[in-house]
Amino acid sequence: MTEKILPLAAMERILKKGDPNVRVSEPAKEELRKVLEEYGEEVARTASKFAIHAGRKTIKAEDVQLAIKHK
Amino acid sequence: MTEKILPLAAMERILKKGDPNVRVSEPAKEELRKVLEEYGEEVARTASKFAIHAGRKTIKAEDVQLAIKHK
Repeated sequence: MTEKILPLAAMERILKKGDPNVRVSEPAKEELRKVLEEYGEEVARTASKFAIHAGRKTIKAEDVQLAIKHK
Repeated sequence: MTEKILPLAAMERILKKGDPNVRVSEPAKEELRKVLEEYGEEVARTASKFAIHAGRKTIKAEDVQLAIKHK
């Protein structure tokens, strides 16, 4: 379940990075938001487990890096 | 290369979704931003190719969906 945390204007900027001349539909921005939030939440769940496993209550950058490698 | 398009406050919200009691370091937010922007750009490059392949100049949601399946 995604919560529309990421701004749609940011999704448009990211989608135009592939090809600056391309246009972007509103549903395409919403789809990218959904995808990035789901991916982010998956990383977050794993990263918080790794932080706790390391005896911490704070997620560090290294937890995020490890979470990407071991999703 | 990422451009710091996504807001760090949004990264914090996403990182806390895994475990609301966890804290999040600033470098962890920056790391998640980097990861999500890189992933988003990869999806964007593929989605814009698929749009052009379909004879369009506009990325639609279906291009994003297909790009995720065929990165």
